[in-house]
Amino acid sequence: MSHQDVTRQLAAWIVGCRLADIPASVQTEGVRTFFNWMGCAVGGARHETVDRALAGISPFAGKPQATIIGRGERLDVPNAALINGISSHVLDYDDTHLKTIIHPAGPVASALLAAAEYQPMSGADFLNALIVGVEVECRIGNSVYPAHYDRGWHITGTTGVFGAAAAVGHMLKLDETQMTWALGIAATQASGLREMFGTMCKSLHPGAAARNGGLAAFLAKAGFDSSLQAIEAPRGFANVLSTKQDYNEILGGLGQTWEAGLNSYKPFACGIVIHPTIDGCQQLREELGDAVNSIAAVRLRTHPLVLELTGKRTPKTGLETKFSVFHAAACALLRGDGSPTAFTDEAANAPEIIALRDKVDATSDTSIHEASVVIEVRFDDGRVIEKTIERAIGSHDKPLSNAHLERKFAHQSGLVVGEEVTQALMALCWRLPELADAGEIARASVPAGLRDAAE
Amino acid sequence: MSHQDVTRQLAAWIVGCRLADIPASVQTEGVRTFFNWMGCAVGGARHETVDRALAGISPFAGKPQATIIGRGERLDVPNAALINGISSHVLDYDDTHLKTIIHPAGPVASALLAAAEYQPMSGADFLNALIVGVEVECRIGNSVYPAHYDRGWHITGTTGVFGAAAAVGHMLKLDETQMTWALGIAATQASGLREMFGTMCKSLHPGAAARNGGLAAFLAKAGFDSSLQAIEAPRGFANVLSTKQDYNEILGGLGQTWEAGLNSYKPFACGIVIHPTIDGCQQLREELGDAVNSIAAVRLRTHPLVLELTGKRTPKTGLETKFSVFHAAACALLRGDGSPTAFTDEAANAPEIIALRDKVDATSDTSIHEASVVIEVRFDDGRVIEKTIERAIGSHDKPLSNAHLERKFAHQSGLVVGEEVTQALMALCWRLPELADAGEIARASVPAGLRDAAE
Repeated sequence: MSHQDVTRQLAAWIVGCRLADIPASVQTEGVRTFFNWMGCAVGGARHETVDRALAGISPFAGKPQATIIGRGERLDVPNAALINGISSHVLDYDDTHLKTIIHPAGPVASALLAAAEYQPMSGADFLNALIVGVEVECRIGNSVYPAHYDRGWHITGTTGVFGAAAAVGHMLKLDETQMTWALGIAATQASGLREMFGTMCKSLHPGAAARNGGLAAFLAKAGFDSSLQAIEAPRGFANVLSTKQDYNEILGGLGQTWEAGLNSYKPFACGIVIHPTIDGCQQLREELGDAVNSIAAVRLRTHPLVLELTGKRTPKTGLETKFSVFHAAACALLRGDGSPTAFTDEAANAPEIIALRDKVDATSDTSIHEASVVIEVRFDDGRVIEKTIERAIGSHDKPLSNAHLERKFAHQSGLVVGEEVTQALMALCWRLPELADAGEIARASVPAGLRDAAE
Repeated sequence: MSHQDVTRQLAAWIVGCRLADIPASVQTEGVRTFFNWMGCAVGGARHETVDRALAGISPFAGKPQATIIGRGERLDVPNAALINGISSHVLDYDDTHLKTIIHPAGPVASALLAAAEYQPMSGADFLNALIVGVEVECRIGNSVYPAHYDRGWHITGTTGVFGAAAAVGHMLKLDETQMTWALGIAATQASGLREMFGTMCKSLHPGAAARNGGLAAFLAKAGFDSSLQAIEAPRGFANVLSTKQDYNEILGGLGQTWEAGLNSYKPFACGIVIHPTIDGCQQLREELGDAVNSIAAVRLRTHPLVLELTGKRTPKTGLETKFSVFHAAACALLRGDGSPTAFTDEAANAPEIIALRDKVDATSDTSIHEASVVIEVRFDDGRVIEKTIERAIGSHDKPLSNAHLERKFAHQSGLVVGEEVTQALMALCWRLPELADAGEIARASVPAGLRDAAE
């Protein structure tokens, strides 16, 4: 295939992709992707990161066209996309395309659902556009990963803007040239630095990608033009932002093999490298019962990335606990918790967690798989047991079941909008492909009392 | 100085810089910077690039807080900043920081003037913030240029977002930590690819920088946090977007030497490399009179960048003529024109210009300075004359006079808003430092008839 024509060929595929062309298994994964995204967006809706972003942008917002998920406010489409992109990522609890560690739904679903409230569309069309957007984002990610990520780009932001443009462009029925422009307008806004990890700006990345990518599609529809080779040109996205460019990852098997079918969902509200440890410690807690109170020492043998990314010994804030495998182990052993409530200021400073955390040690072992861990527990009486996690829950080989996705959704959403709204919202999300108006789901995320207050 | 603390030290300087600390000559250049920007923003206000951008974003715009320069519409602050940033750059007629080829005013003045209509401020405070923004933008540019530009980044976009954040942050009186956050929020949105040159997206870059940088300041004011080392961290702006990082260019002599005093203004509405040729051909036209009609051949000896960037032999559209030194020479010889009217579809297809254009030849000569050209003209009768331009008008050594800036402003603005509005607007721009309300200038750019129509 020609490397002179990557962007245009990709645009042609986007424009032509129909739901009937997408395998049933990928459609099912698309619904799970959306379901998981909605739970996370509701779960994060009241985070102070969202409060502050809203405070910053609200004076400038336009007509109340679209819902802020889980809240009473309504904003114009691009600003709603921005805020929902932040909410859905802020708890580090969203989805992961494991090959690239892109969190695919944040940019795409946030842009698309806000647009769907402005220009109503069926759930089937929505699902079609969502899958197309995720596919585009992950394929572009594959083409530049890992060099692009290693250089310091937060790949969810830089590729998410393409996914959002593709999804909204699909719903707007852009023609091939307009879609090529939309990808170009997206490309030239690709941004997001890994330096921002640990700050509010990390969540800004999927939010900005959703806003900018969605607007790119609306601009292209209005005739705003762009390069026709924005991805592959010598001074285009792939060459400027990466030293690796494998365009076969973008065009090869397009419509035949599906990255959108490989999405995974976090069982725990933190970086994926700690997941095996939490999984193992939760299992140990089930098995040990009260004996967790007589632990003398815990030794973890982990993949080297674990200590590189999450080696913080004495986290003092909720945010810092996400970067401490020691905290995560202690909290899972004592409380069985790996959800957002495990990574709060309260948990960071709970004396019993601190006491156990200080008994946890970890060593790096290059023979350990990324999805594995070996946990050795020594008790006060000298007894020693060992637990090996071969593949953590949520990893490629152990996907979360729908029932688990529901427990995850219900727990985090229930804390924010209550049980009743949560149950109705979950039911509606599963029914996405049948809905006449996909935007209905957005509005269903807001408790009636809040809706009335805002009107 | 410590390289661990570049962003914070820069933020501290921004926060503390008062107009009284700025030398009079730099203040004067600041007013000229603003004057030239306003003329360009009015001149570009009716360009189809602006029409299409407005059509794309208008459905989502907020309250009519700020003026679209030279037009009747009013938009919310970030969207007005976006559009005015596009208008002021779209004719390629704006300003240039020659060391980095940043066009400094577009992102900074567009963000600041829109904000000044929302939160009124004196002309003196406006000038202070404008100069601070330009200084920040150009210093960050110096720290990464040329490697950053060579990699493919449109440096006006990538550094403009910092300038806009600094300027708006200054007017909002952010404290040092908030200003550090604002620079960080800006850093993680830095974007804009050189691949977009020749498309509408080129002008989107200063517009998006104005919007995103201004919003970064408002977000920081609302407590939205960011990295404190966004520029210098291993995965921060300078390391991720460039292979060169010279932090002494950012912090060295800060407040003592002024990049903002080195701004230059384009005498011609095209890339700066063609300016010596246009200057020389205009002079030849004055000297030759009717003899320009008996030219047999024109031979240009130019700096190598001229043919690399503007070697297009047969431009067919106005946009393409900006990339043709052949067209520019012919149009300057026949019409004496290097203004926006020289780079239109009409000019591209005028038979007499095409005829002369085809007689123009150019060769690269590494001994020729970037601001120089040697023009050899042979006439039908065999006579040959030669014109050497040592330094083109508008270059560092031959700055445009205020009178020339006024002619430039009046010509392009008069075509869009008429003579009367133009004269009043120019007078107001010169009086910027004395004004009680800087936003008054924005409103004065709109003819009364358009204002009434929009209300």
